[in-house]
Amino acid sequence: MSLRAAVSNKRCVSGLLSQLSSCSSHVRGRVPAVLVTQQRNNSTSPKIKVEFDQSRGVAIMQMQSPPVNSLSLDFLTELCISVEKLEMDKSCRGLIITSSQPKVFSAGLDIMEMYGKSPERCGEFWKAVQEMWLKIYSSNMVTIAAINGSSPAGGCLMSMTCDYRIMADNPRYSIGLNETQLGIVAPFWFKDTMVNTVGHRTTEMALELGLLYSPSEALKIGLVDQLVPEDQVLTTATQTMTKWLAIPDHARQISKSMMRKPTIDKLTSNREADIKNFVSFITKDSIQKSLHMYLEMLKKRKG
Amino acid sequence: MSLRAAVSNKRCVSGLLSQLSSCSSHVRGRVPAVLVTQQRNNSTSPKIKVEFDQSRGVAIMQMQSPPVNSLSLDFLTELCISVEKLEMDKSCRGLIITSSQPKVFSAGLDIMEMYGKSPERCGEFWKAVQEMWLKIYSSNMVTIAAINGSSPAGGCLMSMTCDYRIMADNPRYSIGLNETQLGIVAPFWFKDTMVNTVGHRTTEMALELGLLYSPSEALKIGLVDQLVPEDQVLTTATQTMTKWLAIPDHARQISKSMMRKPTIDKLTSNREADIKNFVSFITKDSIQKSLHMYLEMLKKRKG
Amino acid sequence: MSLRAAVSNKRCVSGLLSQLSSCSSHVRGRVPAVLVTQQRNNSTSPKIKVEFDQSRGVAIMQMQSPPVNSLSLDFLTELCISVEKLEMDKSCRGLIITSSQPKVFSAGLDIMEMYGKSPERCGEFWKAVQEMWLKIYSSNMVTIAAINGSSPAGGCLMSMTCDYRIMADNPRYSIGLNETQLGIVAPFWFKDTMVNTVGHRTTEMALELGLLYSPSEALKIGLVDQLVPEDQVLTTATQTMTKWLAIPDHARQISKSMMRKPTIDKLTSNREADIKNFVSFITKDSIQKSLHMYLEMLKKRKG
Repeated sequence: MSLRAAVSNKRCVSGLLSQLSSCSSHVRGRVPAVLVTQQRNNSTSPKIKVEFDQSRGVAIMQMQSPPVNSLSLDFLTELCISVEKLEMDKSCRGLIITSSQPKVFSAGLDIMEMYGKSPERCGEFWKAVQEMWLKIYSSNMVTIAAINGSSPAGGCLMSMTCDYRIMADNPRYSIGLNETQLGIVAPFWFKDTMVNTVGHRTTEMALELGLLYSPSEALKIGLVDQLVPEDQVLTTATQTMTKWLAIPDHARQISKSMMRKPTIDKLTSNREADIKNFVSFITKDSIQKSLHMYLEMLKKRKG
Repeated sequence: MSLRAAVSNKRCVSGLLSQLSSCSSHVRGRVPAVLVTQQRNNSTSPKIKVEFDQSRGVAIMQMQSPPVNSLSLDFLTELCISVEKLEMDKSCRGLIITSSQPKVFSAGLDIMEMYGKSPERCGEFWKAVQEMWLKIYSSNMVTIAAINGSSPAGGCLMSMTCDYRIMADNPRYSIGLNETQLGIVAPFWFKDTMVNTVGHRTTEMALELGLLYSPSEALKIGLVDQLVPEDQVLTTATQTMTKWLAIPDHARQISKSMMRKPTIDKLTSNREADIKNFVSFITKDSIQKSLHMYLEMLKKRKG
Repeated sequence: MSLRAAVSNKRCVSGLLSQLSSCSSHVRGRVPAVLVTQQRNNSTSPKIKVEFDQSRGVAIMQMQSPPVNSLSLDFLTELCISVEKLEMDKSCRGLIITSSQPKVFSAGLDIMEMYGKSPERCGEFWKAVQEMWLKIYSSNMVTIAAINGSSPAGGCLMSMTCDYRIMADNPRYSIGLNETQLGIVAPFWFKDTMVNTVGHRTTEMALELGLLYSPSEALKIGLVDQLVPEDQVLTTATQTMTKWLAIPDHARQISKSMMRKPTIDKLTSNREADIKNFVSFITKDSIQKSLHMYLEMLKKRKG
């Protein structure tokens, strides 16, 4: 989820209030997946668990932030530090990202990071979202998403940044950049990543409608690469990793960079402007009001 | 149909005469679909009929210019004015484009606009073709093409500028940018629109061969999104519109713009040059001679 | 095969030695297809045989350089001269490229052109590889690849530069840019050609893994356009050519140029830098050592 809309389009901003309150029902009647509130956990238990098998050179990164691995600033910071550590460790050649939470891979950005926060804090948050994308999309490691649950919005973005996507073949799960359904807009680098994955026309329709795809639909359009029964997602990821690691690292890395560099360069050379746009949008009174109403609605659902 | 060829390629121009006369038989033995002559209608009956359902916020635009809705200057002007009126009316959120003519959606540009006309008039005509594309491709409304008949050349372009395409599942109908079959060339923005719709390789082969696709072929390559029985095209379009209108307008509009703006900017910043190229090509003696021969052949067929 | 890696990535170079020696077994247990050594033939028998049917305007170019049509400097020079001659002959409108060798279309670049050669010679070789691609990719003739055998690396590139690809439906054959499997990297214009053919995501995975596809897999992803029984490859190519030649030449040529020019311009404006990069990479001690070991391994296999 991005909440970054073209600031120049004034109508979007003024129209968001009513849309946010009225459109949550479009999300297939499920728990709204884009804007999630993290159950605050005052403990300092880690949100990311990394198991590194030195002998195989493969790390498995479990996202374990209940209930739905929403991407808070703390979560993203911890995730980025973990990825960077593995990246620096030359003995680590492969990274599998998965979830320890039932039914969900990651539900996307944490709405609480955008509500009632100072512009400075909002900017810090957005920078962390960018950082997560940059780190994984440009990683020298082989990155495999073991998508063992729903993966909307920011969760879908994280999946798309990997080299390969294996999803649980459970029709109750879904994946997609569904921001539009909530009256908000995926930023250009979310869009670029999706175009690189499924092509221009599929992305156009997906973003215009904020589509969430079932696993079989996602396979058909190429949003994921493989479906397996739910209990085989991680083992299949491990087996797939072995095949990828049989390829000479450096040739694979250069090939990957050749494919992704133009997209990465586009964000890195516009990073500050992208943050500024996000902060300027998210701190508007009208948007904050929308978020307030949305949070109230979530409270009532839980009550 | 464009008749705009790269003027720098001299061979094209000199080669067109014989090609035009010899290649019409390649058009699958059907009535030539690209270059059509409009049965002149001296009445001032409107070529475009708009029914706007204020309560639903949806307009249905019927093209009703016998026999084949060919795109003349008058037709295009009327169409552009209609689209602009709806665009300005904030209560209109969706536009369905269809044909009231049997068996044809639109047969493409009107050859009579290019034959024996002054450069000024030719330029005016080409500007109207650009305007039609610009207006629909960048529309803030949800645009659905209800393709209830054949849709070659300019008709295919018009379909591709919409957000969604529903075609009658009748194997006698066809759709495609078939300009090449007549020895002429789709201009760059026709090409860009097709690449955005079906990808690079499919467009390359489609344009090199001037391919016309059957509905099922068109569905397979993604040139249309859905096939339905002929008598259900409009009702399906109406139902589909309801789904699209459930999406928050502004987020959808910004997403659409994000996908299409680079392609639109390319024409708007080259519009005058594009007109100049077209006029310079179409007013050449050799091309006018080709058009003359083509028209003579059409007369004989009718006779 | 290119052996041109991003020189800036130092790790690639140092890592190549062990990779080359260890990874050859990844090539599906077949005869390594990327780096081939040409059985030196001291005779001056032509490596390219051209049969031009003046009445039909179609030339058939047989590659006949035993054992596997590897692309040596001599081979490429002869091929380029042949293509240029046909290109200049206005009566020649179509070119079919095929192999007279059993089981192989072309096995790619000749390793002997890169081992123990002076920088000048290496540069001359690379220039010839570029020239082959430029000549075929921008040809005004209709070009059809009649792929009657395996077509890895440079062989796959040559196939992709044609307008249409017909492959023998023999599951023992394969096609793909498999450079990565040998620890080397396809240069940007190999990559661009593949993206134009099969799209971004398929190319990304193909290049990261150095994938070789079976004919049916290649058809599925669009790397080839048609499969036919082995003994019908050439006759089908001839029949297909007839259909293509029914299209007016100049309109087809302009359409083709419109699709390919940006990709061609990218190499032509970076040609010297691309040669320099290749030479600088290939003449490094570490790479020469790798090639030496690779050649020793090939000798043992033959022994």
